[in-house]
Amino acid sequence: MPVNLVAPEAQSLLAVPGLKLGIAKARIRKPDRKDMLVMLLAEGSRVAGVFTKNRFCAAPVTLCKEHLAQPDGIRALVVNTGNANAGTGDQGMQNARATCDALADLLQIKPAQVLPFSTGVILEQLPIDRLIAGLPQCVADLQESHWFDAAEAIMTTDIVSKGTSRQITLDGKQVTITGISKGSGMIHPNMATMLGYIATDAAISQAALQALIDHAVNRSFNCITVDGDTSTNDSLILVATGKAGNSEITDTTSADYLTLRDAMTDVAVELAQAIVRDGEGATKFMTIQVEAGRDEDECRQVAYAIAHSPLIKTAFFASDPNLGRILAAIGYAGVDDLDVNSMQLYLGDVLVAEHGGRAVSYVEELGAAVMKESEITVRVVLNRGQASATVWTCDFSYDYVRINADYRS
Amino acid sequence: MPVNLVAPEAQSLLAVPGLKLGIAKARIRKPDRKDMLVMLLAEGSRVAGVFTKNRFCAAPVTLCKEHLAQPDGIRALVVNTGNANAGTGDQGMQNARATCDALADLLQIKPAQVLPFSTGVILEQLPIDRLIAGLPQCVADLQESHWFDAAEAIMTTDIVSKGTSRQITLDGKQVTITGISKGSGMIHPNMATMLGYIATDAAISQAALQALIDHAVNRSFNCITVDGDTSTNDSLILVATGKAGNSEITDTTSADYLTLRDAMTDVAVELAQAIVRDGEGATKFMTIQVEAGRDEDECRQVAYAIAHSPLIKTAFFASDPNLGRILAAIGYAGVDDLDVNSMQLYLGDVLVAEHGGRAVSYVEELGAAVMKESEITVRVVLNRGQASATVWTCDFSYDYVRINADYRS
Repeated sequence: MPVNLVAPEAQSLLAVPGLKLGIAKARIRKPDRKDMLVMLLAEGSRVAGVFTKNRFCAAPVTLCKEHLAQPDGIRALVVNTGNANAGTGDQGMQNARATCDALADLLQIKPAQVLPFSTGVILEQLPIDRLIAGLPQCVADLQESHWFDAAEAIMTTDIVSKGTSRQITLDGKQVTITGISKGSGMIHPNMATMLGYIATDAAISQAALQALIDHAVNRSFNCITVDGDTSTNDSLILVATGKAGNSEITDTTSADYLTLRDAMTDVAVELAQAIVRDGEGATKFMTIQVEAGRDEDECRQVAYAIAHSPLIKTAFFASDPNLGRILAAIGYAGVDDLDVNSMQLYLGDVLVAEHGGRAVSYVEELGAAVMKESEITVRVVLNRGQASATVWTCDFSYDYVRINADYRS
Repeated sequence: MPVNLVAPEAQSLLAVPGLKLGIAKARIRKPDRKDMLVMLLAEGSRVAGVFTKNRFCAAPVTLCKEHLAQPDGIRALVVNTGNANAGTGDQGMQNARATCDALADLLQIKPAQVLPFSTGVILEQLPIDRLIAGLPQCVADLQESHWFDAAEAIMTTDIVSKGTSRQITLDGKQVTITGISKGSGMIHPNMATMLGYIATDAAISQAALQALIDHAVNRSFNCITVDGDTSTNDSLILVATGKAGNSEITDTTSADYLTLRDAMTDVAVELAQAIVRDGEGATKFMTIQVEAGRDEDECRQVAYAIAHSPLIKTAFFASDPNLGRILAAIGYAGVDDLDVNSMQLYLGDVLVAEHGGRAVSYVEELGAAVMKESEITVRVVLNRGQASATVWTCDFSYDYVRINADYRS
């Protein structure tokens, strides 16, 4: 069961003026399931995206990058679940293009103004006829209020849907931010994809929006273990419709930019953490915090070594304060000149290890008490600099094996 | 249960003239269990070792390196199970030294002529009194014929003991090679250690033995996933007692060197594979073979990405030919300029993917048939060079989680 995570209430996901959402049951993989989503953006909307670095990136990812690079603005997004259109060669590209063509026809826009997304099994061709047949249903369903259904339509093995909203004031105008995400990955995202869509009605320049997405993704989706083993289809998209009536934000040092940036980052963090909380088989939510390193890179290296270790993850599942496994992971993280005698390891607020060994004050009962919690922070203080990094992950249970051994059958 | 692996028969492990082994039940962690081993080497024996690169390396590893660097030859090895003496700070070093001092006293040699090894839980101090009390029992038990008991004495969570012998002829003399190993690691070795000891009575110079260990380890213990997440105590030791009567091998291009090298490498491969076959919860033995890469490094990168992926390992456990997961792992292996359209993926002899997608000839029944085997080869042909690399690993089962969630309790 997800760790301290419930699906959003329908009324909590606020409409973003200038963005409509329509869903369909197109039988992509299963009958009677919401499996397609179209988002229609007002003319003049700004869109920024970040995508998987996997060399085997899916056809829709390639096409998204191509379309984002062209001068006409993006006007529509289309998402299907059930099939990732990855490892599908030339035919996969043709199918992704055919999807954009068909939606562009329906909406009277150019195909290059459409961004396509797919999530589901890899190595199988899209059922392109059913997908195209689902598009008119999506278009007929377009409403600004359909965020809740949209969050459900992009789910694959997710147990709960993921979405959240914020409202802020910019330039005297009320501005809304709403985001949804999907992904149930623990070490890798299952069914090949983490997807995130965050929209605002704020007016912001393309350059400022691009700066904002880099800031947000590095503090959210790039801090969950999904990132460490990036899949074929991972995508995060920011949309700014500009309908709020604030004067366009162009200066990335302005107060308005910072207010918007922090609120959107906050949404991104909540959506990214929700993916970990809904991690396959997760029973615990773990925050790995590495401090006082020479640079952020080495802090992330140490944090990911801990977050990826199956030995540590199974020990957390068992609520076993087997802290030697954490020390071993720190030791093999790849920081070659790390002095293990000068660092400290904390479990929650409990000092566990220092001077290269168990802390004198540590007794197992203290660690065992922390391990019983459902939210646990592991803190490593490297004592060699000013940098820090945080990574979120979950534990590793019988259910992880069951889910991943069974999911195609 | 171990995959196609049974314990060696006692008579199959041949004595190596010049090396005696003695074991003890010293109650290091559990009562009535062989948990200590001493090996006494004839004067003039050559010893070479390779050790973990983990920054949190255990006290005995640090001491082994120190003792190997001193000019007096190594005369004894001492191994305890139950406690790794890792993450134990200054006290751990003192305990490791005390062990060497005590054994040196008994054997009338110098402390620096002793190599100490420990395997077991991390972050706890050695029960040094029980360990030292066990030494006389080991010494009293010293016999050239005690390899079988020695293989059992170094086990921790291993289900079966691991050992093998070869005989070859060098310079008209019969030469024996016998090796033992321990480790049940799957992704990491459990209880913090993979240990391997391979001895021969061949006469060989120190420099040639050093060249031999590098050759052997790179084709054996460095090809199992244990290496990817190297533990605090991993050690491989080669011993050459020189008692066979062959003229000393000094030339690493000589026929005798090559014969000895290949036979010792063969033993190392069998011992390394045995660790994977006895991997925690293993039900399948997987060979990951990456060919036609630009260099060995990139081939190993791709092979380890596949071998470490929990998604792939769980799919193999389920006998599910979920090949998209393998393509995704190839894509995120970190080979930045990899052209995924020009590579081929084989499962056993079945061509699965090429041209960036599923092979035209591939049908799921072909893959499913291969997945039912207990020994499976995954072959990736990168088609961009002449280099290749092989990695051995095992699948990922419910039992892996059970073993690692339970082992301290």
